[in-house]
Amino acid sequence: MNDQPGRAQKQSGLISMSPVKVFGSAPFTNVARVLLCLEEVGAEYEIVDVDFHAREHKSPDHLARNPFGQVPAFQDGDLMLFESRAICRYILRKHRSTDGANLLREGNLAESAVVDAWLDVEALQYDPAMHAVFVQHRVVTALGGEPDERVIAESVARLRETLDVYEARLTTRGYLAGDEVSLADLSHVPYTRYLLEMPYGPPVFGEFPRVTAWWERLLARPAVRKVVSMMGGGSG
Amino acid sequence: MNDQPGRAQKQSGLISMSPVKVFGSAPFTNVARVLLCLEEVGAEYEIVDVDFHAREHKSPDHLARNPFGQVPAFQDGDLMLFESRAICRYILRKHRSTDGANLLREGNLAESAVVDAWLDVEALQYDPAMHAVFVQHRVVTALGGEPDERVIAESVARLRETLDVYEARLTTRGYLAGDEVSLADLSHVPYTRYLLEMPYGPPVFGEFPRVTAWWERLLARPAVRKVVSMMGGGSG
Repeated sequence: MNDQPGRAQKQSGLISMSPVKVFGSAPFTNVARVLLCLEEVGAEYEIVDVDFHAREHKSPDHLARNPFGQVPAFQDGDLMLFESRAICRYILRKHRSTDGANLLREGNLAESAVVDAWLDVEALQYDPAMHAVFVQHRVVTALGGEPDERVIAESVARLRETLDVYEARLTTRGYLAGDEVSLADLSHVPYTRYLLEMPYGPPVFGEFPRVTAWWERLLARPAVRKVVSMMGGGSG
Repeated sequence: MNDQPGRAQKQSGLISMSPVKVFGSAPFTNVARVLLCLEEVGAEYEIVDVDFHAREHKSPDHLARNPFGQVPAFQDGDLMLFESRAICRYILRKHRSTDGANLLREGNLAESAVVDAWLDVEALQYDPAMHAVFVQHRVVTALGGEPDERVIAESVARLRETLDVYEARLTTRGYLAGDEVSLADLSHVPYTRYLLEMPYGPPVFGEFPRVTAWWERLLARPAVRKVVSMMGGGSG
């Protein structure tokens, strides 16, 4: 077993190889994104819950990890990181030898740029539209309020416009950045999982058969199935 | 002159070295971000205007470049890209040998991750707050409407919270990702330039002396001065 590439890298000594720590829990979409990457490369990790009810996210200890008082934060030895997509890039670069899917495509100038572009689409177009629907449908109602149906309708319309571009894109390739899965696809998993549990999700996805087939291909990945399960009943 | 590193790379033949094309004009902040990177590495480029009044951004030609019908789009030989930060990464990787500032820090696992994190802060926290202020103050009024002062106040409050984190961060280092400038800093230039022309900007910046000094260090860079000048009177 000790000549396995993954273990060889883990024993190189250049980088800390004790389990990394993820601060925050799996139901948070930005935490789930990080867990997905850790599962994809088979890294060891430890989840450290942050108690929001006790306002632990605004404690000096947590603010030293994430100055914005958000989750996730991430620790690898002396290195402390935040921002989920930056953490994902770090994990995939560190474990490049065990990243069978080559999820960043670094080393190929053009292919890595296409992954970057579609990862930015997820972060800047898909995520904000999804976040707005999620906040209205789940957070506002959990706090006893009435969801703002106008905000939901506008966000679902934005989402539909984005998925319309995805549908065209997926006509000639299996994944957003090409014929193979990349971080750009995986980054969509956490919010898509929640979307499909909300009444707005299945009708919108049903309009886009190639997007639906793409989602099913993602769900067939063991790492995706595991993290979707860790996200649980969607409490966060 | 022909043994200069930049030219040597340009003649390598592995990558197209005819001038790249940037579709969109400098007053657009997302276009200016790309121009900054091109200027920093001394790349040759051609700007191709997109006529929004003639709805050229929604033409089939432009949608083939950017499926969301936005600017910028970017062409390097057969490669077409969109999303400004992805284009910036591409430019900096391609011209790594002429990037004296090493603006992505790739090759150093920890340092590149810190650049990624603060670039995501710019994209996901700074830019949305600035964009909201800019739309109300400049776009709504240009269209003859009344700016929504509540939106402006909320966005300025968000901006102030973000700059408060920057001010603490800049206590022990000259730039957001460390002692040297990176793409994370430069990515703030286009909107900061507009902010400081609006009535909300100088009072907010005035509360943060280290942020103000950081901005002055950025403005001292020839590439920054050139692109700030290209952005002109702020028409877009």
